[in-house]
Amino acid sequence: MDIATLRKTHPEHWMKAAALRVLAMDAVQAANSGHPGMPMGMADVATVLFEKHLKFDASAPDWADRDRFVLSAGHGSMLLYGLLHLTGYADMTIEEIRNFRQWGAKTAGHPEYGHAKGIETTTGPLGQGLATAVGMAMAEESLRARFGGKVVDHYTYVIAGDGCLMEGISQEAIGLAGMQKLSKLIVLWDNNDISIDGRISLSDLTDQRARFAASGWKVLHCDGHDPADIDRALTEAKSSDRPVLIDCKTHIGFGSPGKQDTKGAHGSPLGPEEIAKVREIYGWTAPAFEIPPEIKAQWEAIGSRGAAARAEWEARLAGLSAARQAEFGRVTAGEAPKKLTATIRALKKQAAEAQPKVATRKSSEMVLEVVNPAMPETIGGSADLTGSNNTLTADLGIFGPENRKGRYIHYGIREHGMAAAMNGMALHGGVRPYGGTFMCFTDYARGAMRLAALMGAPSVFVMTHDSIGLGEDGPTHQPVEHLAICRATPNTQTFRPADTVETAEAWEIALTTHDRPSVMVLSRQNLPTVRVKHTAKNLTAQGAYVLAEATGKRQAILIATGSEVEIALKAREILEEAGIGTRVVSMPSMELFAAQDAAYRKKVLPAGPVRVAIEAAGRLGWDRWLLGERGREAKAAFIGMEGFGASAPAPVLYEKFGITPEATVAKVRELLG
Amino acid sequence: MDIATLRKTHPEHWMKAAALRVLAMDAVQAANSGHPGMPMGMADVATVLFEKHLKFDASAPDWADRDRFVLSAGHGSMLLYGLLHLTGYADMTIEEIRNFRQWGAKTAGHPEYGHAKGIETTTGPLGQGLATAVGMAMAEESLRARFGGKVVDHYTYVIAGDGCLMEGISQEAIGLAGMQKLSKLIVLWDNNDISIDGRISLSDLTDQRARFAASGWKVLHCDGHDPADIDRALTEAKSSDRPVLIDCKTHIGFGSPGKQDTKGAHGSPLGPEEIAKVREIYGWTAPAFEIPPEIKAQWEAIGSRGAAARAEWEARLAGLSAARQAEFGRVTAGEAPKKLTATIRALKKQAAEAQPKVATRKSSEMVLEVVNPAMPETIGGSADLTGSNNTLTADLGIFGPENRKGRYIHYGIREHGMAAAMNGMALHGGVRPYGGTFMCFTDYARGAMRLAALMGAPSVFVMTHDSIGLGEDGPTHQPVEHLAICRATPNTQTFRPADTVETAEAWEIALTTHDRPSVMVLSRQNLPTVRVKHTAKNLTAQGAYVLAEATGKRQAILIATGSEVEIALKAREILEEAGIGTRVVSMPSMELFAAQDAAYRKKVLPAGPVRVAIEAAGRLGWDRWLLGERGREAKAAFIGMEGFGASAPAPVLYEKFGITPEATVAKVRELLG
Repeated sequence: MDIATLRKTHPEHWMKAAALRVLAMDAVQAANSGHPGMPMGMADVATVLFEKHLKFDASAPDWADRDRFVLSAGHGSMLLYGLLHLTGYADMTIEEIRNFRQWGAKTAGHPEYGHAKGIETTTGPLGQGLATAVGMAMAEESLRARFGGKVVDHYTYVIAGDGCLMEGISQEAIGLAGMQKLSKLIVLWDNNDISIDGRISLSDLTDQRARFAASGWKVLHCDGHDPADIDRALTEAKSSDRPVLIDCKTHIGFGSPGKQDTKGAHGSPLGPEEIAKVREIYGWTAPAFEIPPEIKAQWEAIGSRGAAARAEWEARLAGLSAARQAEFGRVTAGEAPKKLTATIRALKKQAAEAQPKVATRKSSEMVLEVVNPAMPETIGGSADLTGSNNTLTADLGIFGPENRKGRYIHYGIREHGMAAAMNGMALHGGVRPYGGTFMCFTDYARGAMRLAALMGAPSVFVMTHDSIGLGEDGPTHQPVEHLAICRATPNTQTFRPADTVETAEAWEIALTTHDRPSVMVLSRQNLPTVRVKHTAKNLTAQGAYVLAEATGKRQAILIATGSEVEIALKAREILEEAGIGTRVVSMPSMELFAAQDAAYRKKVLPAGPVRVAIEAAGRLGWDRWLLGERGREAKAAFIGMEGFGASAPAPVLYEKFGITPEATVAKVRELLG
Repeated sequence: MDIATLRKTHPEHWMKAAALRVLAMDAVQAANSGHPGMPMGMADVATVLFEKHLKFDASAPDWADRDRFVLSAGHGSMLLYGLLHLTGYADMTIEEIRNFRQWGAKTAGHPEYGHAKGIETTTGPLGQGLATAVGMAMAEESLRARFGGKVVDHYTYVIAGDGCLMEGISQEAIGLAGMQKLSKLIVLWDNNDISIDGRISLSDLTDQRARFAASGWKVLHCDGHDPADIDRALTEAKSSDRPVLIDCKTHIGFGSPGKQDTKGAHGSPLGPEEIAKVREIYGWTAPAFEIPPEIKAQWEAIGSRGAAARAEWEARLAGLSAARQAEFGRVTAGEAPKKLTATIRALKKQAAEAQPKVATRKSSEMVLEVVNPAMPETIGGSADLTGSNNTLTADLGIFGPENRKGRYIHYGIREHGMAAAMNGMALHGGVRPYGGTFMCFTDYARGAMRLAALMGAPSVFVMTHDSIGLGEDGPTHQPVEHLAICRATPNTQTFRPADTVETAEAWEIALTTHDRPSVMVLSRQNLPTVRVKHTAKNLTAQGAYVLAEATGKRQAILIATGSEVEIALKAREILEEAGIGTRVVSMPSMELFAAQDAAYRKKVLPAGPVRVAIEAAGRLGWDRWLLGERGREAKAAFIGMEGFGASAPAPVLYEKFGITPEATVAKVRELLG
């Protein structure tokens, strides 16, 4: 539909949509950077969605049963900010819009989760929003199965662009959603045929409708500038028994005489002259950042449209038993059950006594076997490595179209899609996602793991086969740099536990953390129990601690993580027998140790003794602990990997790469001179 | 086709294929680890491919015009090793097969490029082989356009499994190949309906045929156990005008009475009893690792089948002019043209004189503007950020179905697919790929960037917008941990040049490197020329060097990279004025500096002065240079990022995050006490 027809046939709609368009155009111009074309193109779709379909109440943005709206094409952030401002979200003031892309504003260049209510997830890296939304829709299904359709019954809407659909992660999301028959997931494709480099035909000829249909989606289409057609498609989508793609044919930079349908509308301000022309074409006379009161009132009516439904929902919630209400409140608040600590502590005690010699991936399974029954909100899964990641425990049941009460997801060979879906579940709330793959394939999941950190989503990534210790599969499967990658990522908790006790402690921390993801880095090979003396206290929470003290004069400190703690302990035995007092420090989490106060760090790593760190990984990141923090120095060495691994049985690899007690002893002797 | 029918109707084929199956079964059993099911399932397809279609000569595995064969489902490595051994590749002896997955063997758990001839690329991380093969097919098209179909005319065959097709990277590869109409790319899908967790229907219901067709592929199918049907499909595929998917319906673990068609056949030895039963079903009586001579002879005849074609090809090559032959030899050997150094040197001189104040992404474009005409084998591209990455230079032309002489690829929004395709081009040889995206999106390309390092493929990744210096796009687009990620990755050269001169030097190194990828980390924002005195010598090759010396007593050393070198120089000015002698060290490549001898490192970073490093990124990796290497100590500090970035204009961000000359000066004063 062209503008003239649209203005004539839908004058009220037109002005509401124009408000979104003008805000985007003006904010981008004021910031002198940003993306006006997408909001201008999708304003009609967004207006119809918010006006007629989206279940929300701007005065209660945390309403648990609200529909989720995800702007996967995050560069069009001004569309979202405009919607939130116009519908009356309290924290999205016109001042925030004026300060688009400025320091301290809630209106970042791309939508940032946590900056303002109504931003359901951080988007910008393309495809992430779509894949995250799949997790939100799965969380909704799971919670509905658990708490009933009276308190959980909402849709997840996504606006995705051509870029989202070209990214590989989109295929993982589409495949997963299709198989799971997520009928309450509705994706609105901004089909404007333009990307940054120019027309889509420069780089793609994919028939997206056929592609989605091939993965079991229902496919609809509409004229993205015809409100009635958009409404029809949305109405039809809501009654689907499968996820729905709505192909919305739109014009990027709609109404810009010089830039509509060109890449020029995508990522730069239109310029004052062009904006003046657009205003005239739109029939918009108000100055920048001023919304005529009658238009604002219409939008605010949309914003409060859901208030009655919310009140009814609250009444329905109140109709549940007190225990059910409390449980619903607990899981949506993301609070771990009170008994979790006792459950973990009991397991620790048992492990310290029984001293199992198992791989930490098995230890992790042992923990999950007691945690999952105690914590009904956990949802586990694996990217097709269930038996290797040890992520499936008894009685979880498989989550699927026929069993929404199942708590285990076969994610398929989709590490990136899995990680993003986990983020979506964590953000949705009410469930606690964990999911597994091999540590090496953090590479594939990186985009979503970074977003988890940036958003503070408490996803738990279970990464097994954590070093050359995996053996024969060889260097493609052997992480070397991946611990450094996780440790380098801000706001990420990386755990590499040495035995069942540390694994249990790491899980306790992960499951009680609200504001960051955790990475559980677990061995394939069996390891002895090293924490043979039970402590009620969670020592892993300190990041590092003295596991074995020197006898007599302390001449050396060995620092190790995970599977190398065993090596450190053996080296210590040899050294002690030779009269060289040796302390062993277990460091399951470098980040948590760095977060301790200087006094504790100094207590664990005092100046004086030589230091040798042992980790079957690269050195990057170790020098801080080896060379001493500022003002303290040490003679030090690192025993680990200098390059990639190799294919051979694990014990051979440890021997060949020189990660052994004997090599450690030799290094200590060399340093002692 | 069932085994009984197959044995009866195709007895010779059967025994050849059985040899592959038995070798796989026995080698996995001997190693007590590995994946027998896939080779057993795809042996018929592979036998027909090698016997009737693949153009190769086992005695000349480096024949430039050979067909490429990529085993994307790399866990089925024994299929490839078996093929290479049976057809007579000299370095794939039966001893290597016996030593499958053992230390020092060429027969790693997954195929490792460089271990043995005939392994065209490293596979194992699923989907990589398929995406890499797309690059090989593009390299073939490009070289054919350049040197003519008489010397370049070959196919690229891929065996891909369900896992390859579920990974997101596969969609990027499929989309790219479809758009590029790579008619000489033929993918054989091992459609066995089984993944590690069980039946594919546990996690996917995608109609793969429809999916490939949606991206413009020709789709064929065959009974993967019927030699005639396989042959028919391959014959038809070779005359396609588009890339071809052949859906090969197979049975994993074909013939195993207890494990065929189950996940039990996927990733574990079958066990001696089961193997004995399979031998009987196969009619195979020879002991493990013994191939009956008549069967070996048949296979060796296949291996030498291409000798005549190769001789003819050599004659055709000899028919080219001497200059053309020399040029073909030069580019297929990956040698840079002799004039490259002089070209770069001239640009350096010019930059030192003109002292442009430009972003290093622009500097990179200036380099490419002189390099591309001098080096006709370069093939540039970008993942839809051409104007931002500054990767397109004049007269390159756009590579596409209608212009195979074009040297610039619009990869689309497909960072991972781009990186893998670049690897494929680099491995194919004859072309020098470089490709751009934002530094932050190394996250998306990680899987392929790691493989480049592992394989030693000299791909050049042009990563612009390298820090908070990109400004308003905000934290989703601002790298913080990505320098550490690249530096932590073995066998990767990371460059963060400070100006046009260093950028030119970095490019010279990247383009003359044969054995590792390079990452060019480039600024969005303008930077002054800091190398104002021309040196013929490439100082960047030393990794770090003294850019500005202290006047009088050297009290402080400032170490910086890229855009922060300007800050270091400004801080030095202030400090020098205050009488504090300050050296500035520019460190464009931490890895190359680490590779220098200790004497040089000590010369650049002598003990004594306080040290402050400045980099708008995380600290991980810096302590080695700050705290002093073993035996040398320093009072030191780091000025950089502690968490994620923010959305605001770049100068504001530098100020707010305290990465300024003033903060540097204050830190030096504090350290000096």
